[in-house]
Amino acid sequence: MRTQVIIIGGGPSGLLLGQLLHTQGIEAVVLERKTQEYVLSRIRAGVLERGLVGLMEQAGVSDRMHAEGFVHDGTMVGYDGDMFRIDFAEHTGSSVMVYGQTEVTRDLYAARDKAGLQTIYEVEDVVIHDAKTDAPYVTYTKAGQQSRIDCDFVAGCDGFHGVSRKTIPEAQRREYEKVYPFGWLGILSETPPVDDELIYSNSERGFALCSMRNAHLSRYYIQCPATDSVDDWSDDAFWDELKRRIPQSAADTIITGPSIEKSIAPLRSFVTEPMRWGRLFLCGDAAHIVPPTGAKGLNTAASDVHYLYNGLKQFYLNHDSDGIDHYSERALARVWKAERFSWWFSNLMHTYPGQSEFDKKMQLAELAFLRESPAAQTAMAQNYVGLPY
Amino acid sequence: MRTQVIIIGGGPSGLLLGQLLHTQGIEAVVLERKTQEYVLSRIRAGVLERGLVGLMEQAGVSDRMHAEGFVHDGTMVGYDGDMFRIDFAEHTGSSVMVYGQTEVTRDLYAARDKAGLQTIYEVEDVVIHDAKTDAPYVTYTKAGQQSRIDCDFVAGCDGFHGVSRKTIPEAQRREYEKVYPFGWLGILSETPPVDDELIYSNSERGFALCSMRNAHLSRYYIQCPATDSVDDWSDDAFWDELKRRIPQSAADTIITGPSIEKSIAPLRSFVTEPMRWGRLFLCGDAAHIVPPTGAKGLNTAASDVHYLYNGLKQFYLNHDSDGIDHYSERALARVWKAERFSWWFSNLMHTYPGQSEFDKKMQLAELAFLRESPAAQTAMAQNYVGLPY
Repeated sequence: MRTQVIIIGGGPSGLLLGQLLHTQGIEAVVLERKTQEYVLSRIRAGVLERGLVGLMEQAGVSDRMHAEGFVHDGTMVGYDGDMFRIDFAEHTGSSVMVYGQTEVTRDLYAARDKAGLQTIYEVEDVVIHDAKTDAPYVTYTKAGQQSRIDCDFVAGCDGFHGVSRKTIPEAQRREYEKVYPFGWLGILSETPPVDDELIYSNSERGFALCSMRNAHLSRYYIQCPATDSVDDWSDDAFWDELKRRIPQSAADTIITGPSIEKSIAPLRSFVTEPMRWGRLFLCGDAAHIVPPTGAKGLNTAASDVHYLYNGLKQFYLNHDSDGIDHYSERALARVWKAERFSWWFSNLMHTYPGQSEFDKKMQLAELAFLRESPAAQTAMAQNYVGLPY
Repeated sequence: MRTQVIIIGGGPSGLLLGQLLHTQGIEAVVLERKTQEYVLSRIRAGVLERGLVGLMEQAGVSDRMHAEGFVHDGTMVGYDGDMFRIDFAEHTGSSVMVYGQTEVTRDLYAARDKAGLQTIYEVEDVVIHDAKTDAPYVTYTKAGQQSRIDCDFVAGCDGFHGVSRKTIPEAQRREYEKVYPFGWLGILSETPPVDDELIYSNSERGFALCSMRNAHLSRYYIQCPATDSVDDWSDDAFWDELKRRIPQSAADTIITGPSIEKSIAPLRSFVTEPMRWGRLFLCGDAAHIVPPTGAKGLNTAASDVHYLYNGLKQFYLNHDSDGIDHYSERALARVWKAERFSWWFSNLMHTYPGQSEFDKKMQLAELAFLRESPAAQTAMAQNYVGLPY
């Protein structure tokens, strides 16, 4: 079998790339390790930058997002028992879209299936061959049977643990990492969100985030020790702790209920360089991880997709390899900005083991500066709604 | 003897306070541990915020500063071998004044002496008594003779090691501190400055700063291990290292020469709370220290002087104690902002022992963001020229 682009990984970035390529008549096959149902069962955040919203529109999969998503023109930032608002619209003329990542993935699968594009599920033992030549190919096993697909390019959209990054020899990769000494305990509950917008809250007891999926489904998080397990946290204990960490006015009005999902996620910053190795291109979590503070994970994957899609389009339609030749530099330039923002916002909002009283004062002073300074709010808002591609 | 205000410490903040009080007919006596000559022999930086320039004008001591000082409308920031400019005038409509702290002190002494205001030098064993009452007094020894001065208020302008802060019982003080794991090795040289403006430079080898006193007197600094001594650094070694840390265009054009002064300063962030204890008011280094990055030391002392001067003026002229009653909160609110800026700018520009490759990338990403973002430059410039009192 032969195709133009093999996309390894059927998560949102691989699917979005496939859909965008399809609009240009570029053929791609998606290989996914799990089933579609499994992929759609993953719970992920869903604050979409304007850039990703634009890519969804270009891919022709934005109708339900525009109908059901919530446009947020700002966010609340809490500290010291109180909160203030950062107005994205005022400071940037833009906004973000709250629409669950699972819904993005669902819409992309629906479009993919409707267009009859090929997705091969439950593939194992994926190996990328000859990526440094003009004739790469991928082999895999499915139901005990080995197969091979030849292609022009391979897009590695298979996440942090996938095979794509590891295909680049270790000696030719440079990896940067920071592991944060805490996790996020998150619950999903069928309750109305406490606020129309997100509340990011710094407190002496640790960070908390009030988020939502829709008007009836709330997502709340609290910072917890990295060593905690979900069994350590009853629903009551979670709500009690959340209320102690969010501004009083929010704590007084929050509606609680049973959790329908509860999980702990570690926080990590990670980047690998380069993001291109011959005809293999890394996209999204395969190349970089951000801590979730500020919701840059999917959005940064989307920025990679933007650069890769445009590079491939330029290659196939204009016979110009400039975009793919410079994919790594261009994608990384924006990746590092998103990494910086996520790192900064994480440092600002969390408590750290062994943090000195001076360091705590610096957080409060920075929050006070952010509250008072339109320039600081603009810098934050520009990053939050997404820097230009 | 009796006076209205006793000012402990004849450095620039004590002298400025004295001069401002004198414009309102409020009597103050300055007690100084050393001689005037000794105070004037101390080498200190000299980038004055607009607020301090305004206070010098109010105190009637701004003529020479305006004649000989240099107005800087911006600063250069170097990293990765290159540099960019932050335009204060464009982003804030304001600027800073480059005029040595020693010159500020000299002008203040000249005015003080001309007005015949009392300064008592070489005082020892200063003790502040009854600060929590309406009738404080200060005792001291001079040339073996003990004296006592009664007063309404005591201004503690005697620096980090002075008696004023220690007069507040330890149990009633809360202190915040961060010691940076490096120092600044500075030299003064009779050479023309390499640039019209300051160059703050981040490099893999450590921070460097190109500063100046005037058109013929340059001041250069390099970050060095806290354990180094000036004897470890010949002039040649200093210049070699400086050139490796500053942008190529500056390294290519710098004029070097023998150092006429060479010293190493440690970097520390420190704040004590409260800044008022009864009728004792702490000002400047007695209450807080900033690392020198961004030149906030004297400027933050000046902001204290502003609040204290206005509080005393309100007390004596309007019989209203509001300004002195709220001195600590008002002064500290601005102190913490200056501490935050100095801490942020120090973190951004220095290399740290044990710093990870990821952390270095965060510095570069933040510098790149600062280079590209007018909003980030505005936030920086507003702090650099000085937040409003």
